[in-house]
Amino acid sequence: MSTDPTSSIPRPDANGLVHGLTIEELKLLSTSCLEARALAYCPYSLFRVGASLLIHASSPTTASTTVISGANIENASYPVGTCAERTALGTAILQGHRLGSFKAIGVATDMDDFCSPCGMCRQFIREFCGNEVPVFMHNKSGEFRVLTVGELLPMSFGPEKLPPRE
Amino acid sequence: MSTDPTSSIPRPDANGLVHGLTIEELKLLSTSCLEARALAYCPYSLFRVGASLLIHASSPTTASTTVISGANIENASYPVGTCAERTALGTAILQGHRLGSFKAIGVATDMDDFCSPCGMCRQFIREFCGNEVPVFMHNKSGEFRVLTVGELLPMSFGPEKLPPRE
Amino acid sequence: MSTDPTSSIPRPDANGLVHGLTIEELKLLSTSCLEARALAYCPYSLFRVGASLLIHASSPTTASTTVISGANIENASYPVGTCAERTALGTAILQGHRLGSFKAIGVATDMDDFCSPCGMCRQFIREFCGNEVPVFMHNKSGEFRVLTVGELLPMSFGPEKLPPRE
Amino acid sequence: MSTDPTSSIPRPDANGLVHGLTIEELKLLSTSCLEARALAYCPYSLFRVGASLLIHASSPTTASTTVISGANIENASYPVGTCAERTALGTAILQGHRLGSFKAIGVATDMDDFCSPCGMCRQFIREFCGNEVPVFMHNKSGEFRVLTVGELLPMSFGPEKLPPRE
Ligand SMILES: [Zn+2]
Ligand SMILES: [Zn+2]
Ligand SMILES: [Zn+2]
Ligand SMILES: [Zn+2]
Repeated sequence: MSTDPTSSIPRPDANGLVHGLTIEELKLLSTSCLEARALAYCPYSLFRVGASLLIHASSPTTASTTVISGANIENASYPVGTCAERTALGTAILQGHRLGSFKAIGVATDMDDFCSPCGMCRQFIREFCGNEVPVFMHNKSGEFRVLTVGELLPMSFGPEKLPPRE
Repeated sequence: MSTDPTSSIPRPDANGLVHGLTIEELKLLSTSCLEARALAYCPYSLFRVGASLLIHASSPTTASTTVISGANIENASYPVGTCAERTALGTAILQGHRLGSFKAIGVATDMDDFCSPCGMCRQFIREFCGNEVPVFMHNKSGEFRVLTVGELLPMSFGPEKLPPRE
Repeated sequence: MSTDPTSSIPRPDANGLVHGLTIEELKLLSTSCLEARALAYCPYSLFRVGASLLIHASSPTTASTTVISGANIENASYPVGTCAERTALGTAILQGHRLGSFKAIGVATDMDDFCSPCGMCRQFIREFCGNEVPVFMHNKSGEFRVLTVGELLPMSFGPEKLPPRE
Repeated sequence: MSTDPTSSIPRPDANGLVHGLTIEELKLLSTSCLEARALAYCPYSLFRVGASLLIHASSPTTASTTVISGANIENASYPVGTCAERTALGTAILQGHRLGSFKAIGVATDMDDFCSPCGMCRQFIREFCGNEVPVFMHNKSGEFRVLTVGELLPMSFGPEKLPPRE
C-alpha cells in the first residue's frame, strides 16, 4: 500500500491552494497522518488511526514544528482510551497552541472508506478550532474528503455557551 | 420561568404531526426533558441539563414507559462525569431498547439559547439512533429547534465502520 | 454455568451479616449483578459486565426499588462507551440517590477471575459512596472478593478537593 | 510561592536513591510537573494540574528526552476534557514509549494538599506502567507523597484480564 497521497491531490484553486493549503502543506498534512498510524497502540480493536495538525506559521511553538501528529491509544477499559485527534491536540495544546493556531486537521485509518473523527473528538477539536478549519479525512490510499469543523459539528456546544467562571 | 412548552409548539403538518410526533408526544417529550433538569448533579458547573427519549410503542419495555429521562452527573474529576443524553440512553439500553426503539430525543438547559448535545453525546446517540431521528433542542422557556441525528453528526463514524468481531 | 451464588456465601459474622449485609441482601446484590450481564451491549469486546447497587432502605426512591442494575454499553468509538457500574449509578442518581444512599456495590463478568471496577468507575463511584462501602467483585460462578471503595481508590481525588463554586 | 522542591526532598537510601530515583532525577521530575501547571487549559475549573514522566535511559526516544510533561485540557463539555497525566502519557506513547519505559510519575496542583491522580488516569497509567512505578504527588510547595501504581489501583483491571484479540 502506498502512503503517497500525491496522486489524489485535487486541482488547486486560482491561488494555488486546496482548502486554503498550499500543495506542500497538504502533502505534509496527508503524509503525517498516514504515517502516524504506525504509532497507534490499539491491541483491542486492531484499528489504527493517525491524525495530524497543520500549525499556522505565526503560532507559538517550542520548536520549528509546523505539523503535530497523533494516534489512538486504547485501554483495557475501553472508555479510558483516547483517539488520534485528541492525542495530537493534547501535544499541541501543551506546546502553547490555542484557538487560531490550527490551519488544518488530517485523519487517516486503514479503511477503504473515508474516516471521519468521532463525535467526542469533534467536540474536543471545537474548543480549539474555528468552524472554518478544514478536516481532511483520508482513506488508506491517501485519498481524502474534506469537511470543515463547523460542518462536522453543526450548532455546536462550545465555550461561548457556558456562563463565565468568576 | 414557565416550563410549559405549549405556547411554542409549531404548527403541525397535514397529518397533525410535528417532525413525526403527535402533539401529545411532543408535549410529553418537551415536558420530560425540561423537568429532568431538576435531577441533575452538577455542583461544579451549576449548569443543569435534562434529556428525554420518546420510545416507539412497539419497542421492548420492562414497563409501560413511553418516555425515559436523564440529567447530567458531574464528577470532581471533570472528564469522569457524564451528560444528560447519555444518562437517559443508559437507562433505556438497560431496559432493552436498541436501534429502532427511539422516536425522538429532547434536550433542555437553563439557557436562553437553544442547546445542542455535545459531540460525545452525538456519538453515543448515533450508536442507537438512525440518522432520521429528530432531536428537539430546547431553551429554558421550552421553545425548541430541531435537527436530526444525521444533521448533528454528518459523515459519522458508526458501528458499520468497524471490522466485525469474529 | 450456575449463576446461583448461594454456595459461595461466606460465613456471616455474629450479627448474621457479611460486610454489613444480611444474607438476603447479599443474595439480591449477587444475583442482580450476575443477571445484569445479559443486558450488556458489547459487540466490540464481547466482554459482558453486570453491576448492581444495594440501596439503603431510608434512601429516597421513586419506587420500592432496593437494588438497581447496570451493564456495559459500548460504542464504535471505544472511548465514548460506558461501564456497567456507571450505567447503574446513572440510573440511581436520576432516581434521587446521592452520597449515603448506597449500602453495597456488586460487579460480575464472564471471567473465571474476580473482576474489579476500572479506575474510571472507581472515580465515578467515589463521588457518591463513602470509603467504607463494600464492593463485591464476582467471578462467573458467583463467588466474590470484597474490597471497600476506600481500598479500591486510596488517597482519592474527591469532591472535597475542589475549591467551592461561588 | 516557591516551586523549588529541593528543600523537601527526603533523605535518600544507602544507594543515594529516593524510591529508586537519583536526587537529580527527582529534582527533574518535581520541577517538571510543577512547571507544567503553567501549560494547563482550564478555564472552567481554574484548577491547574501538571504532570511529568521520567523515562528510563534505555527506552526508545525520538529525542534525548528524559522527562515528558503534561497538563490538564478542559472542554466546554466537561467529560470531553482530559487530565495532565493522560496528556503527558499521550505524548510519550506517541514517541514510542510503552510498558517498561517509565521510571516515575509526578503530579502537581495549586493545592496545599497532596494531589493524587483521578481514577481514570490511574487506569490509563496502569496500561503502561507496572505496579512498582512510583507516583510522586506534590502539593503547591513542591513537597510530595509517594504511592506506587499498584498501591493507587489495587486489584486493577489491566490488559491481562481481556481475552486476546485473534
Ligand atoms: Zn475520536
Ligand atoms: Zn454530552
Ligand atoms: Zn469502568
Ligand atoms: Zn485524571
